[in-house]
Amino acid sequence: MQNAIYAQSGGVTSVINASACGVITACLENSDKIGTLYAAENGILGVLHEQLIDISYESSADIAKLRHTPGGAFGSCRYKLKGLEQNRLEYERLIEIFRAYDIGYFFYNGGNDSADTCLKVSQIADELGYPIKAIHIPKTIDNDLVVTDNCPGFGSVAKYIATSICEAGFDLESMCLTSTKVFILEVMGRNAGWIAASSGLASSNESEAPHIILFPEIVFDEDLFITKVDTIVKMYGYCVITVSEGIKNKSGELISNSQQVTDDFGHKQLGGVAPIIADIVKRRLNLKYHWAVADYLQRSARHISSAIDVEQAYALGFTGVKLALIGHNAIMPYIKRISQEPYGWEIDYAPLTEIANKEKQMPRDFITQDGFHITNKCRDYLLPLIMGEDFPPFINGLPDYVRLKKHKVQPKLPAFGS
Amino acid sequence: MQNAIYAQSGGVTSVINASACGVITACLENSDKIGTLYAAENGILGVLHEQLIDISYESSADIAKLRHTPGGAFGSCRYKLKGLEQNRLEYERLIEIFRAYDIGYFFYNGGNDSADTCLKVSQIADELGYPIKAIHIPKTIDNDLVVTDNCPGFGSVAKYIATSICEAGFDLESMCLTSTKVFILEVMGRNAGWIAASSGLASSNESEAPHIILFPEIVFDEDLFITKVDTIVKMYGYCVITVSEGIKNKSGELISNSQQVTDDFGHKQLGGVAPIIADIVKRRLNLKYHWAVADYLQRSARHISSAIDVEQAYALGFTGVKLALIGHNAIMPYIKRISQEPYGWEIDYAPLTEIANKEKQMPRDFITQDGFHITNKCRDYLLPLIMGEDFPPFINGLPDYVRLKKHKVQPKLPAFGS
Repeated sequence: MQNAIYAQSGGVTSVINASACGVITACLENSDKIGTLYAAENGILGVLHEQLIDISYESSADIAKLRHTPGGAFGSCRYKLKGLEQNRLEYERLIEIFRAYDIGYFFYNGGNDSADTCLKVSQIADELGYPIKAIHIPKTIDNDLVVTDNCPGFGSVAKYIATSICEAGFDLESMCLTSTKVFILEVMGRNAGWIAASSGLASSNESEAPHIILFPEIVFDEDLFITKVDTIVKMYGYCVITVSEGIKNKSGELISNSQQVTDDFGHKQLGGVAPIIADIVKRRLNLKYHWAVADYLQRSARHISSAIDVEQAYALGFTGVKLALIGHNAIMPYIKRISQEPYGWEIDYAPLTEIANKEKQMPRDFITQDGFHITNKCRDYLLPLIMGEDFPPFINGLPDYVRLKKHKVQPKLPAFGS
Repeated sequence: MQNAIYAQSGGVTSVINASACGVITACLENSDKIGTLYAAENGILGVLHEQLIDISYESSADIAKLRHTPGGAFGSCRYKLKGLEQNRLEYERLIEIFRAYDIGYFFYNGGNDSADTCLKVSQIADELGYPIKAIHIPKTIDNDLVVTDNCPGFGSVAKYIATSICEAGFDLESMCLTSTKVFILEVMGRNAGWIAASSGLASSNESEAPHIILFPEIVFDEDLFITKVDTIVKMYGYCVITVSEGIKNKSGELISNSQQVTDDFGHKQLGGVAPIIADIVKRRLNLKYHWAVADYLQRSARHISSAIDVEQAYALGFTGVKLALIGHNAIMPYIKRISQEPYGWEIDYAPLTEIANKEKQMPRDFITQDGFHITNKCRDYLLPLIMGEDFPPFINGLPDYVRLKKHKVQPKLPAFGS
């Protein structure tokens, strides 16, 4: 009977811990097949540096709370292993750690880069004669993994953003006669407009917020944009805009960079894209504006996570363990949409070679002809992903999120690199 | 039997419609004493311009939904009536409208300025020989009305901000080893730090976010601030900061203005204070940062309103009508804290002369000696105000907020100023 390691990687989501909860629960339920489950602290770095947490010290109540706790409970990292040729030492160290702890199963919970890491770990383990089952558990708010219908973490951001823009719309609508006429919300998404698109779910007709969505997939044309804002304000009295942080001009430069200026000391002014769009609106139309930047609030807003998202995140973790136990390796369990109305899904799996280092863009037919909103096809895709509420329990007026004990195992090996 | 007018004024909150629901319900329950209830569209402007909505066209289901709908259902306005001497015409017009519609009761739902308007309306009505009962229903997220223990709207913002900063803290904590080390959330509050203070509820000890709160009441000292950030990052690996939009330097200038720069075209760069604080952190400590600006999201986030806040907002509207019916005039019903543990409150009332145009600051002993956090005394005050959840119903993954029919009454008088 061998042991297992679980690790979290890349930007966290409000439901990555639900996947952790799924992995842990499945391991505990299969204690006749898996010995000790370790969590690596701070992703793959915790494996390299032998910073391992023994899960058995956590109470079952605390493990259950992971399902409703945002952030990465074991720490995550932005650290991409180099290619095998460039850094063979790192890969050999991983296998050394696996041997020392008799690890038979490696569950890596992350996005594109992590799928690649997981694949490489599996390959080098084979090569070095210590085969393990390496399973990638998907997560990313960017919703840009291929093969899977959607990515855990995205549905909850979508629900948060759609709810927030809906609420801001009610605010603007009531104040616009004598106050703010244009409101701009900046959302995440450098290359893919999935999150910006999700805001579109809030408007059931063109009078409702958001009136304009600016996608990274569509070249930002200031004149077209200003004409649209002007029309909307004349028609409805106000205009609510969602802007993706990644919008670009026709030369492909980020708008957030294009108007950066330096202060008297030569320091770059560090702004998002929302204030730049606000500035354009003010300059060209002289309308009163307000802007907001959701930033990390959007990806950590567990208080308004989608129930479907939580369920899927948990199921992917749980199923990942089951797949390892029946002998799968170098695969990723993923979400397959099997019906639209009513929405149905199941978990399938695919080899990591089909997934690693690839990126899924928004299809052009998910964006309206004029480039400023989502189509019904996009709505049909997005809507099931925000369905259901899974509010966390509250104590003293605030969500009852858990911090684990994180009992560290005494290292057995010399420090890495020493 | 006379009729009544209800109107909303100033910046909206996520619970001002709960007060509207209270006023409407009380009027309907007393239909033997109050005839028709009109809502003025866009606050006092709707009275001046005879844009009145007949509430009797709304279904009882829709009226009930007001309790959980953000924004101002009848439209609000930023419009302060001038003094009686400067603009006698406006006051005379109001009384003319009251006469035309046989108005005996005027319910005005707003903040400081609105209390003043409500008082003046009552005075001029007496003077012009058309006495009415003018009742001010309090609301303001700024929590700066005097006499009342707290203001409807504030508790919900407090719950939203404390929840959001708690969630962002979990995010940072898991990523700080290899990614963002400093996160800054900008919140509302030009003169009073009540909202910034509420974020402090999220940290039950000094290791938890927020680690630093920047209040408008405390002069911003860059060196002290940087020393504090440095210490926190060295101790915990990351630092979460709440900054009030209204922080000032020792000359009393807003920090949000102090570093504004112009671009190549001579346009002012329009930023909040969060990016400026981020810039200082980057420049002085060279730490990776992220920042967010909640802006309108915080005052419209009905999905995470505090149950106490909703209950009090409703009760103040309801009681305002009851007080008018027993003959009160030129008063404001307010919240009186009658016990701390368990928290108990009741509604009392005070003359508007004690309330209009006054502002309640944060007491200095609510802020720690070093100026960077809240004291236990502040916690004791704030905690009851965020207690309880009052989630709205959801349909298709989003809150089921209501837009009313707003049936407009055919004007009887010539247009104002014609």
